[in-house]
Amino acid sequence: MTLPVIGITTEVVDGDHLELRSSFIYAISKLGGIPLLLPKIEDEDIIRGQVENIDALFLPGGNDINPSTYGENPHPKLEKVEAGRDEYELELIHRCLEKDKPILGICRGSQLLNSVAGGTMYQDLDDEYGEGLIQHRQTSNRDFLNHKIEIMEGSKLHEITGVTEMSVNSFHHQANHDIGASYEVSAVAPDGVIEAIESKEHDFVMGLQFHPEDAFEFNEPSRKIIEAFIKAAEKSKE
Amino acid sequence: MTLPVIGITTEVVDGDHLELRSSFIYAISKLGGIPLLLPKIEDEDIIRGQVENIDALFLPGGNDINPSTYGENPHPKLEKVEAGRDEYELELIHRCLEKDKPILGICRGSQLLNSVAGGTMYQDLDDEYGEGLIQHRQTSNRDFLNHKIEIMEGSKLHEITGVTEMSVNSFHHQANHDIGASYEVSAVAPDGVIEAIESKEHDFVMGLQFHPEDAFEFNEPSRKIIEAFIKAAEKSKE
Amino acid sequence: MTLPVIGITTEVVDGDHLELRSSFIYAISKLGGIPLLLPKIEDEDIIRGQVENIDALFLPGGNDINPSTYGENPHPKLEKVEAGRDEYELELIHRCLEKDKPILGICRGSQLLNSVAGGTMYQDLDDEYGEGLIQHRQTSNRDFLNHKIEIMEGSKLHEITGVTEMSVNSFHHQANHDIGASYEVSAVAPDGVIEAIESKEHDFVMGLQFHPEDAFEFNEPSRKIIEAFIKAAEKSKE
Amino acid sequence: MTLPVIGITTEVVDGDHLELRSSFIYAISKLGGIPLLLPKIEDEDIIRGQVENIDALFLPGGNDINPSTYGENPHPKLEKVEAGRDEYELELIHRCLEKDKPILGICRGSQLLNSVAGGTMYQDLDDEYGEGLIQHRQTSNRDFLNHKIEIMEGSKLHEITGVTEMSVNSFHHQANHDIGASYEVSAVAPDGVIEAIESKEHDFVMGLQFHPEDAFEFNEPSRKIIEAFIKAAEKSKE
Amino acid sequence: MTLPVIGITTEVVDGDHLELRSSFIYAISKLGGIPLLLPKIEDEDIIRGQVENIDALFLPGGNDINPSTYGENPHPKLEKVEAGRDEYELELIHRCLEKDKPILGICRGSQLLNSVAGGTMYQDLDDEYGEGLIQHRQTSNRDFLNHKIEIMEGSKLHEITGVTEMSVNSFHHQANHDIGASYEVSAVAPDGVIEAIESKEHDFVMGLQFHPEDAFEFNEPSRKIIEAFIKAAEKSKE
Amino acid sequence: MTLPVIGITTEVVDGDHLELRSSFIYAISKLGGIPLLLPKIEDEDIIRGQVENIDALFLPGGNDINPSTYGENPHPKLEKVEAGRDEYELELIHRCLEKDKPILGICRGSQLLNSVAGGTMYQDLDDEYGEGLIQHRQTSNRDFLNHKIEIMEGSKLHEITGVTEMSVNSFHHQANHDIGASYEVSAVAPDGVIEAIESKEHDFVMGLQFHPEDAFEFNEPSRKIIEAFIKAAEKSKE
Amino acid sequence: MTLPVIGITTEVVDGDHLELRSSFIYAISKLGGIPLLLPKIEDEDIIRGQVENIDALFLPGGNDINPSTYGENPHPKLEKVEAGRDEYELELIHRCLEKDKPILGICRGSQLLNSVAGGTMYQDLDDEYGEGLIQHRQTSNRDFLNHKIEIMEGSKLHEITGVTEMSVNSFHHQANHDIGASYEVSAVAPDGVIEAIESKEHDFVMGLQFHPEDAFEFNEPSRKIIEAFIKAAEKSKE
Amino acid sequence: MTLPVIGITTEVVDGDHLELRSSFIYAISKLGGIPLLLPKIEDEDIIRGQVENIDALFLPGGNDINPSTYGENPHPKLEKVEAGRDEYELELIHRCLEKDKPILGICRGSQLLNSVAGGTMYQDLDDEYGEGLIQHRQTSNRDFLNHKIEIMEGSKLHEITGVTEMSVNSFHHQANHDIGASYEVSAVAPDGVIEAIESKEHDFVMGLQFHPEDAFEFNEPSRKIIEAFIKAAEKSKE
Repeated sequence: MTLPVIGITTEVVDGDHLELRSSFIYAISKLGGIPLLLPKIEDEDIIRGQVENIDALFLPGGNDINPSTYGENPHPKLEKVEAGRDEYELELIHRCLEKDKPILGICRGSQLLNSVAGGTMYQDLDDEYGEGLIQHRQTSNRDFLNHKIEIMEGSKLHEITGVTEMSVNSFHHQANHDIGASYEVSAVAPDGVIEAIESKEHDFVMGLQFHPEDAFEFNEPSRKIIEAFIKAAEKSKE
Repeated sequence: MTLPVIGITTEVVDGDHLELRSSFIYAISKLGGIPLLLPKIEDEDIIRGQVENIDALFLPGGNDINPSTYGENPHPKLEKVEAGRDEYELELIHRCLEKDKPILGICRGSQLLNSVAGGTMYQDLDDEYGEGLIQHRQTSNRDFLNHKIEIMEGSKLHEITGVTEMSVNSFHHQANHDIGASYEVSAVAPDGVIEAIESKEHDFVMGLQFHPEDAFEFNEPSRKIIEAFIKAAEKSKE
Repeated sequence: MTLPVIGITTEVVDGDHLELRSSFIYAISKLGGIPLLLPKIEDEDIIRGQVENIDALFLPGGNDINPSTYGENPHPKLEKVEAGRDEYELELIHRCLEKDKPILGICRGSQLLNSVAGGTMYQDLDDEYGEGLIQHRQTSNRDFLNHKIEIMEGSKLHEITGVTEMSVNSFHHQANHDIGASYEVSAVAPDGVIEAIESKEHDFVMGLQFHPEDAFEFNEPSRKIIEAFIKAAEKSKE
Repeated sequence: MTLPVIGITTEVVDGDHLELRSSFIYAISKLGGIPLLLPKIEDEDIIRGQVENIDALFLPGGNDINPSTYGENPHPKLEKVEAGRDEYELELIHRCLEKDKPILGICRGSQLLNSVAGGTMYQDLDDEYGEGLIQHRQTSNRDFLNHKIEIMEGSKLHEITGVTEMSVNSFHHQANHDIGASYEVSAVAPDGVIEAIESKEHDFVMGLQFHPEDAFEFNEPSRKIIEAFIKAAEKSKE
Repeated sequence: MTLPVIGITTEVVDGDHLELRSSFIYAISKLGGIPLLLPKIEDEDIIRGQVENIDALFLPGGNDINPSTYGENPHPKLEKVEAGRDEYELELIHRCLEKDKPILGICRGSQLLNSVAGGTMYQDLDDEYGEGLIQHRQTSNRDFLNHKIEIMEGSKLHEITGVTEMSVNSFHHQANHDIGASYEVSAVAPDGVIEAIESKEHDFVMGLQFHPEDAFEFNEPSRKIIEAFIKAAEKSKE
Repeated sequence: MTLPVIGITTEVVDGDHLELRSSFIYAISKLGGIPLLLPKIEDEDIIRGQVENIDALFLPGGNDINPSTYGENPHPKLEKVEAGRDEYELELIHRCLEKDKPILGICRGSQLLNSVAGGTMYQDLDDEYGEGLIQHRQTSNRDFLNHKIEIMEGSKLHEITGVTEMSVNSFHHQANHDIGASYEVSAVAPDGVIEAIESKEHDFVMGLQFHPEDAFEFNEPSRKIIEAFIKAAEKSKE
Repeated sequence: MTLPVIGITTEVVDGDHLELRSSFIYAISKLGGIPLLLPKIEDEDIIRGQVENIDALFLPGGNDINPSTYGENPHPKLEKVEAGRDEYELELIHRCLEKDKPILGICRGSQLLNSVAGGTMYQDLDDEYGEGLIQHRQTSNRDFLNHKIEIMEGSKLHEITGVTEMSVNSFHHQANHDIGASYEVSAVAPDGVIEAIESKEHDFVMGLQFHPEDAFEFNEPSRKIIEAFIKAAEKSKE
Repeated sequence: MTLPVIGITTEVVDGDHLELRSSFIYAISKLGGIPLLLPKIEDEDIIRGQVENIDALFLPGGNDINPSTYGENPHPKLEKVEAGRDEYELELIHRCLEKDKPILGICRGSQLLNSVAGGTMYQDLDDEYGEGLIQHRQTSNRDFLNHKIEIMEGSKLHEITGVTEMSVNSFHHQANHDIGASYEVSAVAPDGVIEAIESKEHDFVMGLQFHPEDAFEFNEPSRKIIEAFIKAAEKSKE
C-alpha cells in the first residue's frame, strides 16, 4: 500500500522565494505521510490539479489573514498580509471540503478554517482581548512548551490524544473569536483563548492554535494528533 | 484533460527551513504545468511515493555537488554542500529514468544528471579551467543576460528553440567537464564551457547551465524550452 | 503631438543622494506621460525654470511635513522632516497653481496641497484621532490593498473613476484634518479619515492619501486616476 | 534669459527605486544650470520627449557597461550591469549628437561615449592593464584627490581649465582602451590610463574618468569644466 | 591545602554553544576559588557526578525562569526561557542543599532559589509592581552602579559586608515577590524590590538580585560577599 | 594676540575610544577659538592641569546624567549613564567657577550646570512632564530647526542674540526642572520646557538645551551665542 | 561506580565571555562521561586544582596557536591568537601527562599536543603546503563529512575504530608538519596532510585534525573514538 | 610642579565625528602626563595656538598617509587617506621641531616623521616588500604581542628600554622604507622591517611601528618608552 500524500502550503518571502519550516516535513515523513509542498498559484485549473494530487491538506502558520476575508476593516495592530494567499488557500479548503479530504490547520490555518465557516477573529489579542490574557507569542525557542491547554471531553481532539490537558508552544498575536456554525471548540488556553476547533460536519477538519509539528518527538499528544491526521489521509485515499 | 504535475526539488537553508525561488513556480504555472515542491526525505518509500505523484522532474540550481558523488576529493574552492541532497536527488533521478519521466536539470541539476551518467566536473572553473574563461558567475541581477551560447545543430535543444545562438544569464562556479556516455553536449559558451547536455537514451532528459525560468517572459528560446519540457510531461502522463 | 511632461519631486536620503520609487516612473510612462524628476533646489530662478519645463506636477509621498508649515509646534510623534523640502515644493505648487498646471499630490503631497490652502493636519493619527481608527500604516507589501474608501458622488474623483468605492493601500501616520477653503473632500476611509481632496478652483489639483502608482496595473480606478492626470497635463500643455 | 536645462541620468537600485548622488544637483545648480533627472524608459517617444526638454546631457557614473555594447564577452571581473541602461543612454546620446546638444560623460558616461564611437574598454584594469598601474579605485572619501592627471596642450580640456595638470579623485575599475575615431584623448593619468576624451566632431562632447562634481568648490579646474559645460548648454539652447 | 571548587552553571545560546560571562571566572579565581563550569545535562547520574566534584554552587544570571516552575501561567511580558535549564539547576540545588554545600544565586539564580522554597515572582516588574518603581534594568554598562540598596541589620549579608547600604548594578525585569518560608529578605531597593534573600536553614545559601562579580574590584561590599562565599566553600570542603 | 583656548569634553564609546561630534570643532575654530579636547581622567592633578590650559569650558551633549548627582533614584526610563563622567565634569566645572572661567553647557552640559547649583531634573520628559509636551527628541537631521523658543527680555541670552524668539533643533529626553538658586531661566520652549539658563553670579556661565554648534552657519542667533562665548573666553584669558 | 570526569577547555570571545560548542557536551554526556568546563586561568594553584578534579582532558578546536609556542615568527596568514590560551593549555597538558591522564586533542588541540613534543606546524596550509592540497576548511555545515582519511594499520586509532578508512569533516587552515619524537602519525588525508597522531609513551594521548564530536551519532568510527577516550578516563580514574 | 601637557591628534570618522582610542589617554595619564586632544584644523593661527598649549606631541596611528606627501603616486593597495590630516599634522610637527618639543609618533605617526625628513615608504608591505615578510597586520586582539623586534645597541631606544629585544603588537600594512637623513633606525623586525626610528638632531623625536600604549601595563619596555617621553616633555616644559 502506498503512503498518503500530505499537501502543505508555503509562504512567499521578500516577493522572490518560497519558504516552509523543515519541522513540517520532518513530522509528516517520520509519521508515515508523503509531504508535497503547494506553492501559491492564481490559476483555478492548477489549484484543482494540486488538490487532485493530495490526500490531505496541511495549512501551516504564517502571516496574518486579510481582515476583509472575514468582513472587517484592518485593525491598527494588524501585521503583514501576503497578497493573494488567503484567496489561494480558501480555494484549496473549499475543494478539499467538497471531496471530504482531511484538513489540519495550524495557527493561521486554524483561523482561516474558522473564517470559511463564518467565524470571526481577534485581529490583535493584546488590544482586543479583555483582562487576564496570558502570553501567546513566546520569545522562547520553538521546543519550549509555553503553557497548558484544556481539551474538551468528548471532542475528537480528546479522543485522539486521550488527555484533557497538554502543554503547547505558542506563536500568535491573532486568535479565533466567534466560532463558525459548523465548528466546535475542542481546547482552550487558561485565559479562555481558543486553542483548537473541529468541524462538526467533516470527518477530520481540525484547527490548532499551537504547533504539534515542533513537539511530536518529545510530547505524546502532539505526536498522536499528527498520526491521526495521517491516518485520516490514508482513509481518505482509499 | 488535467495538466501535468512538475515536481521541483528544494533547498534546506540554515538547517531549519526549505526555500525555492519563485521564478520556478511562476514559469511552470504560466506555461501550463502544476508545480509541486519536493522536500528532501531520507525514506525510500516516501521518495517512491513522491515520484509516483509527478509527471516530470525539475531540478533547480543550488549548492555545490558533493565531489564524492563523482569520485573526487574536495577541491579547496569547493563551496557549501548540503548533506544528503545529492543522495536524495539521485534517488529521484534514478526512479524517473526508470519510468522515462522527463527531467530538466538547471545548473546544479545539470551537473547531477551528468554525474549520474559517469561524467566529471570542474569543481571550480577559475582554478581548473584554462585560459580564456569568460564570466560565469555574474553579479548582475537575474534578468540580465550575461553572454551568448552556441547551440549545436541537430540537437534536441536546437529543435526546441529553433536557434543556434541565444543569450543567457549565468550563476555558477562549477561546470560539467567530461560528459557521461549517454549524454551529448548541445550548447557551449564562447569559451567552450558546456552550457547544455541532453540524454541520447531518454526522450526528454536535459541539463542546462543557465536559467530559462528567469528569462522566459522576454526571451523566446527560454520560453520554448520550458514549454517543451511541460509538453513532454503531458506526454509522459498519458 | 508630443507627450506631456510630468515633473516628479524627489527625496534626499542620508544627506548625499536623491531617491524616488520606480513605480512613479513606470506608471507615468506606461500611461503616456514623460517623467522628469525634480531635485530640490533653493534658487528661485531655477525653480521657475523647472516649472517652465513641465506640464504637470506629481508630488510623491515621503517624510513628514514641517508642522511650522501649517502653524503648529511639533507633536512628540512627529517623524523625520527633510529640511527645506516643504519650502521647495510649496514654491513649485504656487507657480503651478498660478499657471493652472495640473497637480497630483500623493500622501505627503496631498497634505502639502491642503496646507497651502490653509488646511490643518493630524501630526499623528494614533495619538490625535479619536476612537475607531483603522490601520493606515500597513506593514504588508505595497501591492496589498489594505482597506476600502468611499468616494463622494459628484466629485471629480467619482467622475474619473466611475465608482463610489475602491480598495487602496495605505502608508501614512499623518493625515489631513480641516480642509482648506478652496478644497473639497472627495473620499474618506471607513473610519472617516480623509483619503482624497480636490480643488474647487483649479481644473485638476487633487490630493490622494493612497498610492494609485502601486496598483494601476491590476486596479482599474487607480489606472483611471493617473490617466486622467496625464490627460489634464496634455490639455494644459496645449 | 532663462537658464539652460541639464538632463542627468539616474541609476535603478534594488530594482525598485532610482538614485542619484546629490553632488551632481549641487554642482549644476550652483553654477547656473537647471538640473532635471532622466529616469530610464524603454519607450522611444518618451525618450525623444525627454531629449526635447533638455539643453545638455550629463551622464553620471554608475555600474559597469554591458560588454556586448562594445562587442566583447564578459570578463570574469566584470561587475554589476543594469539591464537596459546602456540601451537607454545610447538612445539619449544618439539623439543629443544629432541635435548637437552638449554631453558631459563622467566615469561610466565617458566609457559609453567612447563605445558609441567604436572605442574599446578595459573590463578590469587590475587584470588587463600591464605593469605600473596606480590606484584608480580609491577607498578614501570623495573629497580626497587621489592622483594627478596630465592634460594635453591644445585640447579643449586644456583651453577650459587653463592648466596641464590637475588633481582628481578616482572611483573606477574599468577604463577606455582604444579611442573611437571621432575622439581624442585630452588627459591621462601618470600610468597612462586615459582620464579624458573629447569629440573632434561636436562642439562639446567630453568624457572624464574623474568627478569634477565632487571637487568644484575647492578645485578650480573642476569648477571651470562644469561652468564650460553649462555655458555650452546655454549656447545650444539659443 | 587545596582551593575549593566553585561550580558555575552556563547558558545555551542559539541552541549550539554554551556561554558564560568572564567576570564570574575572574572574580572566583582572583578571590581564591577554582572555577569549573557546569554544562546543562539531562542525565541524573551525570548531575550527581557534577555535584560531587564541586564544593559550592554559583548560579549566574540568565534568561527568565519558566513560570510553571512556580506554578503560574506565562505573563505576556515573559521573556525567553531556556527549555530544561530550570529542571537542571533545580536538580543541582536540591543535591547541594542535601549535602549543605554553599550556594550563591545571582539574579535569575536568586529567583530560582526562592522558587524552590515555595516563593513567588514578579514575572515583569513594569507590569506587575505598583507605583514608585525605579529602574531595575539599566542600559548603562555593567560597571555603573545604578542605585543603592538597604541591607537589613542582623542579616548574614550585613555580617559579611559590614554595611547597611551599598550601591549595585541592576539588570533584571523579574524579581522575587513572596519569599519562601525558609528564606529571609536581607536587602531591598529604595522602591522595596527585594535585592537579597538568605536561607534560614542552611549555612550559606544566598540570593542576590545584583552582580557583585562585576564590581568586586572597586566596590568593597561586593568583594566581601564573594570572599565569604569562597570561604564557606572551603569550610564545606573540609 | 593669541586666540583663547576652548576646552571641550568628550564621550567614551564602547569602553574603548573617545568621540566628539565635529560640529563643535568647526564652530569654535570658525569663530575664533582654539579647540582642545578634554578626555575624562580620574586624577585630580591632571584635571587641575587641564583647567590651567583652557580659557573656557565647553560641555557638549551626551549620555544621561547619573540621578545620584542630583539626589534621585533612577527612573525606569533613564538611559545610558557613562560611569565617572559626571564626577569628572563636575570637577572641571568647580575649578572653572572658582577661576571665573566662562562655561557653555549644551544639553547634558546645561543639566549638569543646574545640578551643581542644586537644581533638579526631569529624568524623562515623556513620563514626568504634564500635558502639552511638544517634540523634544527630533528624528530629523541636526540641521532641521524643530521648534521655536522664547527668550526672556533682559536676560544675557537676549542681550547676546538681540531677539526674543529663535528656532532651535532638539535632541533630549531629559530637561532641567527646578532651577538652582544661582541661575535664572533665560529661554523656554512653547510648552514651557526650559531651554536656557544662565548664572546670576558669574560673568558667562550659560546652559542651553539646544545646539547652536549645528546651526551657527545659517542661523544668526546661534552664531552670536558662540561668538559671545569665545569673546568671554578672550576676556577671561587676559 | 561513578562516571569519569572529562575536563574540556573553553574559548574567550570578545574579551568578555567564554564559549564552547554544545556538541562536545552532548557527545561526552551521551557516551558516559561527566563534562566539566575548564576556564582559562593564570594561577598555577588553580590550574593544579582543575587538573585534580578531572579524569581526562579534552582539548577542543579554536583559534590559532601562537607561533612562538613552536619557535616561529608569525606567518602573514596567521589568524587570531587568544593571548594566554597556549600557556594555560600547555600547563594543563604537562600536568595531565605527569599523571598519565588521557588527553584527546581536537584540531588546535592536536597541534598543541604536537608542539609540546617538539613538533612543527604549517601556519597556513594554502601558503605553505605544496601541490595537490584538497579542501581542509569546509564551508559546508558540520554534519557534512568532507573527505576520507586513511588510518594506519597497527595504530591505536586503528585498534579503536577497527577501520582503515573513515570520512571526516574538516575546519582547519593550519596542520601539524613534523611530528614530535614521542608521537606517531596514525591517519592522513588523501593529500598527505596529517589527520591523527598518537603518543608512543602514554596510554591515551591522541590528537585528531577532525571532529568526531559532530559525527558520533551517525558515524560509527567517530563514536568509537570518543567511547575509547571515556573508557580510558574511567581506567585512569581507578 | 605641574605635569606636562601631551597633545594627541585625532581621527575624523564618517566625516562627522572625531575618535581616539582610550589606551592613549590611559597610558599618558597613568604615567604622569596631562592628555589634551588636538582636533584637525585648517587655520594656521589656531594650530600655532594648539602647539603653544602643549609640551609634547603624540601622533597616534590611523589611516594611510597621502602618497603625495612623500612624492609618489597611489599604489593600488593604498587604503583610506583622510583629506587634510597630513597637512595638519605636518604643520604640528614643523612647529614642534622648531621649538624642540618632544614628539612620539606611533605607526602612521612614525611614517609621517620620516616623510618630513625626506624618507620614503612601502605603500603596501605585501605587494612591495620582498621574500620572508612576517605578519605585520595581526588579527589578534591588541593585547597579543605578535612578534619580537631587535633594538640597536647604542640607540636612544636601547638606552630607554635597557633591552635589545622586546615583543610588540603589530597593526600596519605600510612601513618606512628609506630613512630620512636626520633619522636613524633603532629597531627592526625579524624580517628586517623597520620598527623604530629616532632623530639624530632633536632631543626626543621618535617613531615606533608598534603600540606601547596597548602594552605598558604588562610589558616593561613599553612602559619605559612612554615614561621617557613624558619625562622629556617635563624637561621641555621647563
